[in-house]
Amino acid sequence: MKRTRGGITAPVGFMAAGVACGIKKGAKDLAIIASEKLCVAAATFTTNRVKAAPVQITRRRLRHRHGARAVVVNSGNANCSTGKRGLRDAVRMTELCAAASAIPPDEILVASTGPIGKHLPMENVEKGIKLAAASLRKSGFHAAAMAILTTDTVTKEIAVSETIAGSEIRIGAMAKGAGMIEPNMATMLAFITTDANIDAGCLDGCLRLAVQRSFNRITVDGDRSTNDMVIALANGLAGNRRIREGSGCNLFRQVLEFVCSELARMIVRDGEGATKFISVTVKGARSLRQAETAARAIANSNLVKTALYGENPNWGRIMAALGRSGATVRQDAVDIYLCGVQVTDGGEPAAFPRGKLSKALRKKEIEIVADLNIGKSEETVWTCDFSPEYVAINK
Amino acid sequence: MKRTRGGITAPVGFMAAGVACGIKKGAKDLAIIASEKLCVAAATFTTNRVKAAPVQITRRRLRHRHGARAVVVNSGNANCSTGKRGLRDAVRMTELCAAASAIPPDEILVASTGPIGKHLPMENVEKGIKLAAASLRKSGFHAAAMAILTTDTVTKEIAVSETIAGSEIRIGAMAKGAGMIEPNMATMLAFITTDANIDAGCLDGCLRLAVQRSFNRITVDGDRSTNDMVIALANGLAGNRRIREGSGCNLFRQVLEFVCSELARMIVRDGEGATKFISVTVKGARSLRQAETAARAIANSNLVKTALYGENPNWGRIMAALGRSGATVRQDAVDIYLCGVQVTDGGEPAAFPRGKLSKALRKKEIEIVADLNIGKSEETVWTCDFSPEYVAINK
Repeated sequence: MKRTRGGITAPVGFMAAGVACGIKKGAKDLAIIASEKLCVAAATFTTNRVKAAPVQITRRRLRHRHGARAVVVNSGNANCSTGKRGLRDAVRMTELCAAASAIPPDEILVASTGPIGKHLPMENVEKGIKLAAASLRKSGFHAAAMAILTTDTVTKEIAVSETIAGSEIRIGAMAKGAGMIEPNMATMLAFITTDANIDAGCLDGCLRLAVQRSFNRITVDGDRSTNDMVIALANGLAGNRRIREGSGCNLFRQVLEFVCSELARMIVRDGEGATKFISVTVKGARSLRQAETAARAIANSNLVKTALYGENPNWGRIMAALGRSGATVRQDAVDIYLCGVQVTDGGEPAAFPRGKLSKALRKKEIEIVADLNIGKSEETVWTCDFSPEYVAINK
Repeated sequence: MKRTRGGITAPVGFMAAGVACGIKKGAKDLAIIASEKLCVAAATFTTNRVKAAPVQITRRRLRHRHGARAVVVNSGNANCSTGKRGLRDAVRMTELCAAASAIPPDEILVASTGPIGKHLPMENVEKGIKLAAASLRKSGFHAAAMAILTTDTVTKEIAVSETIAGSEIRIGAMAKGAGMIEPNMATMLAFITTDANIDAGCLDGCLRLAVQRSFNRITVDGDRSTNDMVIALANGLAGNRRIREGSGCNLFRQVLEFVCSELARMIVRDGEGATKFISVTVKGARSLRQAETAARAIANSNLVKTALYGENPNWGRIMAALGRSGATVRQDAVDIYLCGVQVTDGGEPAAFPRGKLSKALRKKEIEIVADLNIGKSEETVWTCDFSPEYVAINK
C-alpha cells in the first residue's frame, strides 16, 4: 500500500467542491462529492435514537438501492430535531443537487453537521448547491474537506493506492470530528471514495469491520451524536477484476481499515481542547466485550483525562474506572502501565522511577495499558485529554 | 419534623471529635464518632469492584454482627489499592481506637477518603486516634464534620427531630462529597446517628430506600468511587417504643430520607468546580428504570453541563443525550422544558421567550424536565454544572 497525495478525489472518476453560502459566518459550509459513474455504496449511521433528517433520508435511500453517484453535505446546521420540515429540507437538498448536476435525485445522498434544533436556511443552501455543482473539479478535494468542518481546527484527508485483483485501485477519504460524539457543533462524518470494482456485499462487510475497528474505537467526550455517518462509494473505474469474498476482499478490507483508522486518529488529535493523544489498552480480560467496556470506562473518565492533561501520574483514577466499568476485575490481579512504566503490581503500588514517568507524561502521545490478568482478551480505545479549553469551546 | 441545631451528636448519647494528625497538611484529618451504648447499625457501600480496605473491613464486621458503637474515619488517604498491608492498616485503626476508647474493636467501624494507591502513614494515624479519642465530646460534631472533608469547601451537617412511637427521636448526620463519585480526592462518605429505638431490619430497610432516593440520585462527574460508604447507628436512648415494620417505620423512613436528601443536595451544591445546582427530571418514560437511565445520561453529559455553566439554552444537547441513553425515545414525541420554559414541542423547536429563558439560566438553581410522552414513569437526578475549575482541581 502507498500513501498518495490528494483526498476524496484521488480515485479515478471523482470530483468535489466546497463553497461558502452563509449557513456559517464567513467559512465554507457546503460540499458536493460526485462520481462520473453510478457507484456501489455502503454506509454506517449513528445508533443514537434521535436521528437527524439527513441520516433518515440517506439510510432510506441506501435501503432501497445499493447505488449512489453523489453526496451533498452542509456544515453549520445539523438539520436534527426539525420534524417533518427537516425531512422535506433534506430531500430538497438532493433535488437541488440533482437539478444542478444532472444526476437523478435518488442517486444523491445527504449529510449535515452543526447545531441541533434549527431549520436549515434553504435560500442559502440553494445558492450553495448551485455554486458547488458548478465548481465540481478533480482539484476540489481540499475545499470539500474544509466545507464539512465545524469546531475542527484542521481538515482530515487521506489517499492511498494498492494493487488488488490485477489492478491498482485508489481510496480517498475525508472526515470531520472535533467532538466524536459531540451533538452540538461537530458530529462525526466521514466520506470514502474508491475506483475499485467491488461487489456491494463485500464493500458493505469491509466498511462495517473497518468502522468497528476505527471510528467506533474513539471517544472525545462520550456524547454520541445524532448525525454520525460514514459513506463509502466505489465506482469501479480502476478496471480491476471484481473484488468479492475470497478474491481480494481481505486485502481491500485491510487498506480500508488503514484509511479509517488514520482518519479516526486525526479526529482524536483534533478533539475539542485536546493537547494529547491517549491510547487505552485493556488486556487479560475475560472477553473482548469486557476488554472494550473497561477500556471505554478509562477513556471516558473525566478524572483520568484531566490528570493526563495535568501530566499527573494518578493511576488510582484508572483503577477506580476499571472497578466501576462493569467488567470483571479482580483488584489484587491488576497491573497498570503508564507510558511503558509499571505503576501497579497486583493492584498495589509498584516502585517506579518517578523522574522517567514524569518525563514520559510530558509527551503528546500517552499509552495506558491495564492488564486484568484473568483472561486472554484485549481491546484498544483512542481518546484525548481534557483541558479547560473544552469547557470554553462548549459553554 | 423539626430541623434542630447541631450535627452528628444531636441524638442522645453520641459524642464526636475531629483532629489534625498530619495525614493532610495543616487540616483536620481524623474523626471518631462514638455512642455510649451499643447501636443497631446499617450501611450501604460502593458498587465499584475495586473496594478500599476500610470498605472491606466495615462490610465484613457488619455482616457478622448488626451492632457497632463507634466509627473511626480518616481523610487525606483512601487506603485503597493497598493490598494486604492496607487491610491490616484498616483493622489496626479499629484496634487503636478500641485501646484509646475502651470500646471492643469488633464494635468499631472504619472509613477512609483521599487519594488511591498510597499506604496510610500509621504513626500519624496512631497519634490522631489517641488525640481524637481523648477529645470525644457532645460539642465535637463540627470538628468531626471538618475532619472528613477533602476537596469539599464546606461541611455538610444536619440534625432533625420527630415524634415517633410515643417519643421524640433525633437524627444527626454528616457527609462529604465534592466529586460524589470521585475516586481520587473525594469519595462520598455519610454518617448518620439516631437515638431512636429501632429494629435492625427496619433500620436497614429504611437506610436502603433513603440512600436509593438521595445519594444514589446525584452525580458530579459520573466517576463512582472505591470508598463510598453510608453508615447509620441507632442507640435507642430516646426511649421510644421499638420502631418496627408497621409501627413507626414509615415515618422514620420519611425523616431519614429527608436527612439523606438534604445531605445529597449539599454534596451537589459543593461539587468540584460547581456554580449551579441542576435537577434533571425525565417523565412520560416506559419504566422507572428507563426514566432514571435517561435522566442520568443528561446529568452526566459534559456538553449539557458546560452549556449550563455558560448559561446557554442549547437544548439540542439534551435531545442528543436522551437519544443515546438507551431508554426508548420517540424523537417526535419529546417535550423539553428548561427552567419552566418549553423549548421543544414534539421534538421540534418551540417558539419560546428568549429573554425570559436567558434570565432564568442566570439563576443558581436550574431545572430540566424532559417529557418522553410514551409512558407514565418519572425519575429525578441531581447534578451540578461543569466549569474550567473542575479541570483545575483535578489536573
